[in-house]
Amino acid sequence: MSTLGNMGEREVIRRLLPALDGHEELIVGAGDDCAVCRMPGAEVDQVFTTDPIIEGVHFLAGEQPKRVGNKAAGRVLSDIAAMGATPKWLLVNVVAPAEFEMDYLEDVYVGMTALCRRFGAVIIGGDVARGPVFELHVFGVGELPAGTALLRSGARVGDVVFVTGPLGDSRAGKHLDFTPRIEEGIFLRESGRVNALMDLSDGLATDLRHVLGQSGVGADLRGAAIPKTGSLGRALRDGEDFELLLTAPPAASELLRVAWRARFGSELAAIGEVTDEVGVLRLDGRVFAPFAFEHFSAD
Amino acid sequence: MSTLGNMGEREVIRRLLPALDGHEELIVGAGDDCAVCRMPGAEVDQVFTTDPIIEGVHFLAGEQPKRVGNKAAGRVLSDIAAMGATPKWLLVNVVAPAEFEMDYLEDVYVGMTALCRRFGAVIIGGDVARGPVFELHVFGVGELPAGTALLRSGARVGDVVFVTGPLGDSRAGKHLDFTPRIEEGIFLRESGRVNALMDLSDGLATDLRHVLGQSGVGADLRGAAIPKTGSLGRALRDGEDFELLLTAPPAASELLRVAWRARFGSELAAIGEVTDEVGVLRLDGRVFAPFAFEHFSAD
Repeated sequence: MSTLGNMGEREVIRRLLPALDGHEELIVGAGDDCAVCRMPGAEVDQVFTTDPIIEGVHFLAGEQPKRVGNKAAGRVLSDIAAMGATPKWLLVNVVAPAEFEMDYLEDVYVGMTALCRRFGAVIIGGDVARGPVFELHVFGVGELPAGTALLRSGARVGDVVFVTGPLGDSRAGKHLDFTPRIEEGIFLRESGRVNALMDLSDGLATDLRHVLGQSGVGADLRGAAIPKTGSLGRALRDGEDFELLLTAPPAASELLRVAWRARFGSELAAIGEVTDEVGVLRLDGRVFAPFAFEHFSAD
Repeated sequence: MSTLGNMGEREVIRRLLPALDGHEELIVGAGDDCAVCRMPGAEVDQVFTTDPIIEGVHFLAGEQPKRVGNKAAGRVLSDIAAMGATPKWLLVNVVAPAEFEMDYLEDVYVGMTALCRRFGAVIIGGDVARGPVFELHVFGVGELPAGTALLRSGARVGDVVFVTGPLGDSRAGKHLDFTPRIEEGIFLRESGRVNALMDLSDGLATDLRHVLGQSGVGADLRGAAIPKTGSLGRALRDGEDFELLLTAPPAASELLRVAWRARFGSELAAIGEVTDEVGVLRLDGRVFAPFAFEHFSAD
């Protein structure tokens, strides 16, 4: 009998997907950072996503409540950023034991609303239920001009691979205090130069594989070019950096970097290129096997 | 120190509401069955809602998975029905322990998608996370013509109070196997005769108080007129009937009942009237105190 534990999250989701139906207004279904829907005749597309955060899994019991709120809302806003969309509405389900303190929960909401306000998003509903551990389930809705959503499936052979900031910081607390790259995602969409976009939540190596798989391409990364705060292993492996990963044609690359620097005062880092080796990830020319990053565990 | 347990769910939500911001496109915020949003110039309004269901709270461990799926999706569809809206999109967060069986989860999805299909709704995303007990968090999106959402706040003095079916069945399994009143909600909205609408999830007495509070009115119910499968106490007190509760002006009452009978082949039951005694609920003329229904516990 297969259990969720011996299958792993990704395989569980893969098994559930065939049960889901299509719809003529559903442009992109489950499998990207957000689903994308278009109402007939509408000038905007809507994006929808959801993320759970669970005490003991995504944060430790006793963590500062405003940081927990920042992470709960931030994960969803990061998914919306990864489409190039503007966040609009959030709904929040709270699960907590009876002895949970109201003051703590109120401060979690302070953290969520503070982050939402920076991007014009609003919490419009939700529910509260009793359960054994503290959890937040955040649902998010965003919008963008019809037909402009940036997908994981858009990478083309020859594209330059970029990341928007240094990787490997999540254990130092960035996984709680990060700022979702909403403005950056909108900028990249409006540039009209980006082929594929996603956010880094499971680590560069793992997340880039999603882009490769969904685009039907490969990639070769230059280790020395990856912006990092610690080791290369950590930059490749650590999840929850919440930077953006993108690909763009080489002809647009220099323009994109100059415009980025002018707008954000930082570097859009070119870290490799997209190849025609379907599903193959290389690091400095050598094949980088799935889970090879486990070898970095000791560093 | 206040805990969630000694405050109760309603008070917890009341304390969180002031933290939430408004928005010019937010027509109805938290506090109704769904939030209602309108994009500038759009011909449709969207409604948004979310419901958790948790093993041991909303269903028992080992319950048939398709029934659990029906309830998980059905609660959200019932909230959408309670606005008079058509359901469109659902997203589902799953929380489960590592030893949870994949076959069971797949059957839960069969239950959810079977119900969604009946109403043209589609599951478009979600996430899976590990936690101590099995939970589903379902987020729902519906739509209806702009400005036509039926709210809890619309009841007027003199209105007739109706319910769409017999109450008190939830313990007999209806809380798992119910059909959300989507078609009925749309019919009531399209009639143009209904002032207030909500679904019955916490019991008639409790839910009607929400309508009274939000409409600034009172009500006097006729015990003998309440359609019920068991005792009057159970009909007033039992939650999770998932029938609809509505009010309509007396001049429209007969027309509504005749049209209902023609359409659904059942009776729209007139169970009382709306009074000018703000917040006061009467049963056969006698004041029915909050929690008075506790006295029925022994029957």
